[in-house]
Amino acid sequence: MIGEIPGVPVGQPYASRVLASEAKVHRPRIAGICGTKSAGAESIVLSGGYKDDEDLGDVIIYTGHGGQDGSGNQVSDQSLDDSGNAALVTSHLQGLPVRVIRGSKSESVYAPQSGYRYDGLYRVASYGSKLGIDGHLIWQFRMEAALGTPTPVIEADQLPVDSPRSDANAPVGNDTPDRASSNVQRIVRSSQVKNAVKRWHSDQCQVCGITIETPGGTYSEGAHIQALGRPHNGPDRTDNVLCLCPNCHVKLDTGAIVIEDSLTVIENGVAAGSLRTHPQHTLSLECIRSHRERWRR
Amino acid sequence: MIGEIPGVPVGQPYASRVLASEAKVHRPRIAGICGTKSAGAESIVLSGGYKDDEDLGDVIIYTGHGGQDGSGNQVSDQSLDDSGNAALVTSHLQGLPVRVIRGSKSESVYAPQSGYRYDGLYRVASYGSKLGIDGHLIWQFRMEAALGTPTPVIEADQLPVDSPRSDANAPVGNDTPDRASSNVQRIVRSSQVKNAVKRWHSDQCQVCGITIETPGGTYSEGAHIQALGRPHNGPDRTDNVLCLCPNCHVKLDTGAIVIEDSLTVIENGVAAGSLRTHPQHTLSLECIRSHRERWRR
Repeated sequence: MIGEIPGVPVGQPYASRVLASEAKVHRPRIAGICGTKSAGAESIVLSGGYKDDEDLGDVIIYTGHGGQDGSGNQVSDQSLDDSGNAALVTSHLQGLPVRVIRGSKSESVYAPQSGYRYDGLYRVASYGSKLGIDGHLIWQFRMEAALGTPTPVIEADQLPVDSPRSDANAPVGNDTPDRASSNVQRIVRSSQVKNAVKRWHSDQCQVCGITIETPGGTYSEGAHIQALGRPHNGPDRTDNVLCLCPNCHVKLDTGAIVIEDSLTVIENGVAAGSLRTHPQHTLSLECIRSHRERWRR
Repeated sequence: MIGEIPGVPVGQPYASRVLASEAKVHRPRIAGICGTKSAGAESIVLSGGYKDDEDLGDVIIYTGHGGQDGSGNQVSDQSLDDSGNAALVTSHLQGLPVRVIRGSKSESVYAPQSGYRYDGLYRVASYGSKLGIDGHLIWQFRMEAALGTPTPVIEADQLPVDSPRSDANAPVGNDTPDRASSNVQRIVRSSQVKNAVKRWHSDQCQVCGITIETPGGTYSEGAHIQALGRPHNGPDRTDNVLCLCPNCHVKLDTGAIVIEDSLTVIENGVAAGSLRTHPQHTLSLECIRSHRERWRR
């Protein structure tokens, strides 16, 4: 049940959760996340239930499940033990696509005017915790539209009041749909930043010290400490990038390692040596602290 | 100069290499690969110079540079020391996009009728060596259309003679353009195969024995021994998948490690222990041999 449902096109409307459930697009009738820790998440519904959600169209900052009272206030901390949240973590770790359904109760401009709408497949690009608007710990998942999933159209009645509508027949929607192209330019720019850091360290991992040798040369990865983009908003600068082996990169991105201000590396709660440094490579303490904050539990 | 050239749309024709060079789309006037080992490849030209090339539209099996005589026969082995070939390896290791230009001398149905055409950005998904048609070692690079790069249109005069053309005004091109959607289904199916292997090994790396612990659970990767798809054509079956840590996955995919029939792991020419096994996890010797063959040098 992971991936597309045969015969259900992107944009398919449903008048109710019951109909979306019968179509197998989102099976539970109340829960916002469908999935299990072992299989990953099948689908999520955005319907305005969590005030920390952000909907940017082809990127969604989706708040995990739990900790609310009956009137939608966050009254306790969320946990990764919650099966819906654990399912989204599995989808992230395994790179699995998740069906996204938007409901009209969401305040997003991308919400349908009424009922629910299947909006295609998204990936869980990253996740982390933070203190939510109500002061309790929440987990948030950055969902990015998967290859082939279009930016949702903004339905006419959802347009902001002050937007230009001189021509009633003018097309509505996203004026800058070239996500693919700008993504590529962003990746190219970011590669230049990462390459500078990798050169300083000659591809040696700043955490564990190994250098991977391949027939095509040594290999390492440039890893952003404070992740780029919302909700983390890290800068794409060399002082926010570490030269890491792929294993330590996974550990940094999943919070298995965090870094103290002293540059001591903490792996799953235990001190595991000091970050290797290079005289030309200064590090941003602000980014290091922001990453630690993201993995507070 | 990596990535798109501002103002140059996909599909832009050039009457000659000189004009493509002046537009900075492919700067050298003779060489098929523009790039260096340190910066990666900027662009490649497909123009029929290498008989082992295969052009499937959004996937290109591109033969590296070198080893030919004046009349296009392969008379000696190719090498990764060649700067063009080394540039494509760098693009692969760093995930950088490469501009693709097709020329009319290519025998592909996707070639332009005349001159040259800029066809957008591709990624170097994998690479490896094999004995070419002329019996010498060649290096081949699997180029996949990047996010946002459309499958090239088949120009009318390139249509195979036996294809239906009852209506002279009928559209020409690719009848199955839903690459994105079928890719997603392929990834989902492949995940099920990988997950079975990862469960057998409880996320312990079959090569180095480590298990990565993250706050969301243990982490490993399912790695195909014989890569999927052309030119490798490996099967998506559990006997072609290993449970590896990300570091050993990079090593397997770049030929830094190969496996002997005895399941001894050879890392950069040195025996490095035996592959860990699980009673339920049989391995295909055919796939292991095919992977070894791919990294013969």
